[in-house]
Amino acid sequence: MQDKLDQLKSILAEVFDLNSSAALLGWEQQTYMPPGGTEGRGYQLGTLGKIAHIKFTSDKVGELLDELKPYQEQLDPDSDDARLIKVTRREYDKSTRVTAQWVEEFARETTIGHQVWEEARAENDFAKFQPVLERIYELRREYSAFFAPYDHVYDPVLDDYEPGLKTTEVIKIFESIRPKQVALIQAISEKPQVDDSFLRQPFDEGKQWDFGVDILTAFGYDWKRGRQDRAAHPFTQSMGIDDVRITTRFSPDELNPALFASMHEAGHALYEMGIDHALARSPLATGTSLAMHESQSRMYENLLGRSMPFWEFYYPRLQEVFPSQLRGVGLTNFYKAINKVEPSLIRVEADEATYNLHIMLRLELEIALMEGSLEVRDLPEAWNAKTSEFLGLIPPSDADGVLQDVHWSSGLIGYFSTYALGNLISLQLWEVINQDIPDLADQVRKGEFSELLAWLVEKIHRHGAKFEPQELVQRITGSKIDPSPYLRYLENKFGEIYDL
Amino acid sequence: MQDKLDQLKSILAEVFDLNSSAALLGWEQQTYMPPGGTEGRGYQLGTLGKIAHIKFTSDKVGELLDELKPYQEQLDPDSDDARLIKVTRREYDKSTRVTAQWVEEFARETTIGHQVWEEARAENDFAKFQPVLERIYELRREYSAFFAPYDHVYDPVLDDYEPGLKTTEVIKIFESIRPKQVALIQAISEKPQVDDSFLRQPFDEGKQWDFGVDILTAFGYDWKRGRQDRAAHPFTQSMGIDDVRITTRFSPDELNPALFASMHEAGHALYEMGIDHALARSPLATGTSLAMHESQSRMYENLLGRSMPFWEFYYPRLQEVFPSQLRGVGLTNFYKAINKVEPSLIRVEADEATYNLHIMLRLELEIALMEGSLEVRDLPEAWNAKTSEFLGLIPPSDADGVLQDVHWSSGLIGYFSTYALGNLISLQLWEVINQDIPDLADQVRKGEFSELLAWLVEKIHRHGAKFEPQELVQRITGSKIDPSPYLRYLENKFGEIYDL
Repeated sequence: MQDKLDQLKSILAEVFDLNSSAALLGWEQQTYMPPGGTEGRGYQLGTLGKIAHIKFTSDKVGELLDELKPYQEQLDPDSDDARLIKVTRREYDKSTRVTAQWVEEFARETTIGHQVWEEARAENDFAKFQPVLERIYELRREYSAFFAPYDHVYDPVLDDYEPGLKTTEVIKIFESIRPKQVALIQAISEKPQVDDSFLRQPFDEGKQWDFGVDILTAFGYDWKRGRQDRAAHPFTQSMGIDDVRITTRFSPDELNPALFASMHEAGHALYEMGIDHALARSPLATGTSLAMHESQSRMYENLLGRSMPFWEFYYPRLQEVFPSQLRGVGLTNFYKAINKVEPSLIRVEADEATYNLHIMLRLELEIALMEGSLEVRDLPEAWNAKTSEFLGLIPPSDADGVLQDVHWSSGLIGYFSTYALGNLISLQLWEVINQDIPDLADQVRKGEFSELLAWLVEKIHRHGAKFEPQELVQRITGSKIDPSPYLRYLENKFGEIYDL
Repeated sequence: MQDKLDQLKSILAEVFDLNSSAALLGWEQQTYMPPGGTEGRGYQLGTLGKIAHIKFTSDKVGELLDELKPYQEQLDPDSDDARLIKVTRREYDKSTRVTAQWVEEFARETTIGHQVWEEARAENDFAKFQPVLERIYELRREYSAFFAPYDHVYDPVLDDYEPGLKTTEVIKIFESIRPKQVALIQAISEKPQVDDSFLRQPFDEGKQWDFGVDILTAFGYDWKRGRQDRAAHPFTQSMGIDDVRITTRFSPDELNPALFASMHEAGHALYEMGIDHALARSPLATGTSLAMHESQSRMYENLLGRSMPFWEFYYPRLQEVFPSQLRGVGLTNFYKAINKVEPSLIRVEADEATYNLHIMLRLELEIALMEGSLEVRDLPEAWNAKTSEFLGLIPPSDADGVLQDVHWSSGLIGYFSTYALGNLISLQLWEVINQDIPDLADQVRKGEFSELLAWLVEKIHRHGAKFEPQELVQRITGSKIDPSPYLRYLENKFGEIYDL
């Protein structure tokens, strides 16, 4: 049996090598690749993806999984090997259900979709995007059909990002928080607004970079096993546990974008860097889900990076770096400014209190489109109606509304909710962390983050993808994904800032 | 038949994608990869190389080549398709003769060899390197045995870099030039030496970078299809015709290294960028041999970059960039300084007049080691004796002698002579170019290089690997590789500089 397991691991390791090579090619495409490389890079990624898919879905892998089934049942179910077999079986069954023809057409349509979306957004012309988006949703419904019977047509697409999570669970979670978040924003809107104008001034890029690097280093980001580069859209990319890169972007006239993007990506990167080396070159050598990942990035970005204890330590340092810009701005005003709540049209610019509403809007539309209860041609109207209902705003154009996000054009349906779920999980974890490390706030006031990171590694990071997200949250917090801690957090934090 | 050819092209395109992905991974390893990435990168490159090898040496490729043989014979023998089948057949026959076991052991021994060599060089301890170098030469003799019968045991290793070239041809070429180069250096040594001390001063790195970029742009390097980065050892890497990168290195206290490295690598890059797009994603989408490649890099580095017409245009500009360093240094003195001839121990620092002697020394030792007429344990002594004979110097240590180059430790035997052959070819081409473009020197005096590049693209670049090097040289110059133009060039140029 050990021999069978070794055979399986050897195939999985090669698949990992192919996928991590593709990851490097993808990272490089967004950082250094000259424009001429685009076509060739497309071929390279296509070939690597195809070979990885063929290897992973081979009959040999299926046979080894069948043969290893009795062995798996003898093992400690939480052991690395038992989990490896279990997760590989899950992924194998998913990958082999989908036809090669579908995969090819989906790849083609989403490549076109992305191009058409870019043009449509630039020209503020939803009608141009409509036919290709219709085809993408058709393909996604065909995708779900491969997994019939299911409880809900949205389950299979959600499962790609949140293994094991069901649509009904997600709907229930969001329905319970929406009225409370809407009420909170309403209450805030009746209070005097905070002043954040000083955040929009010229800030030297080199100094921004250095200040961010200092924070990343304090967080425990290991520069020997990663690096930070500039990219149009910040992202984290792992090429393996010991090579996890982050990217950020700078605005010369604004402090926030680079600062919070770096902290956000650090949360993602620390997760990937903290995975047990015993899981290297296997399907377990990655974070377990997007929501779990987002819980880490949001924790570093918001629960640390937008917290008072953090800035008690860092604000005097920031003032030293930018004395003329921050002269006369006290710590409390700075803290309020970086936490300003203001409903806005653009998701990626949203504050903590409104962010989830952007997600719920998208989730409801996605589900309706998958169910067929909403037609793509009626999408802009539905988008605007929900934006008005949730945020009290009406987009002046589709470019600022339904066309703002890249996700759908790339076929990423089922993805958005993971952002909001990550927010919720981050607070569930944060409550447990603060019980386990009672003086955490004091540590943060001293710029010390190592005990926090050790906790995260022990409870979350080292396990990689061994446990499904709901299972992992349950193990750590005693309950599945639960929005109450997040709601408590929002009400406490913004109640104080806005004197509610 | 068209269908068979399409099948073959499709497999070759995937092999190309795998190899060009590996090329990007290799480039990235030497430019941006954090140290933690080393182990994972090794696995990635190993897996990509293995899959590319399996795909290329598959029975299917052999069958298609057999089936296409009659078709090939009907085609114009110079057509892209006929040449593609011919070159693929040659590479296929070579690749399938070598056992997988040998490939694996060679990869392992040379990985170890490289590590041991680095230590041995740092510790100036040849004895440490000796056993692994013995094993590498044993493996290389085994490699040659796969190709028996051969005229000379060195033929198969040379053929990897110079398809079709024979050891006897190379020996004959070098035997004819050695006495003349030795005599030239002797004559120079009896003349007053030129002063090049002003080249060793602080030169701002940013200004060096910008000056180099201006030259590369004037040469016709296409920044949309490439980029320049820093690396410990300058190199050119093609990821395909439209993504060809160069690297350079800077010395803060010396002008030459970055300047001439950039021009050298530009010559390589222009070759790869000039290949006909009809050959993309095939084994023909690369320069035809290392010597042919070196003829291009040496032409840009030396025949342009160390020529008087070039500096008639660029020296006033260089003086503007570095006024304090070059004040009072006239054009003629500058020209003499960058062409200073002085026998030295280190190949990579050698001037044009002595460079080939470093190569001949290595070639003779390689051949003797392959033949078995020299034992590895006697190599340092033989190295020092030949250095004394050819260059009139005795290395004070093995680190400055037999241990200086990386090549043998990585199994690169048969490689060195390509550097010198490139020098010879560059002058054969140069004589024809100057017949075809009679006012080339005047163009260079105006900083115009486009007609030169167009000539090179037409005669050499666009053909990629369609023609073997001897065939290509013959087509262009009317004769095979011939050292006389190079000797004439050396004698004229240095005769004038040193007033011989």
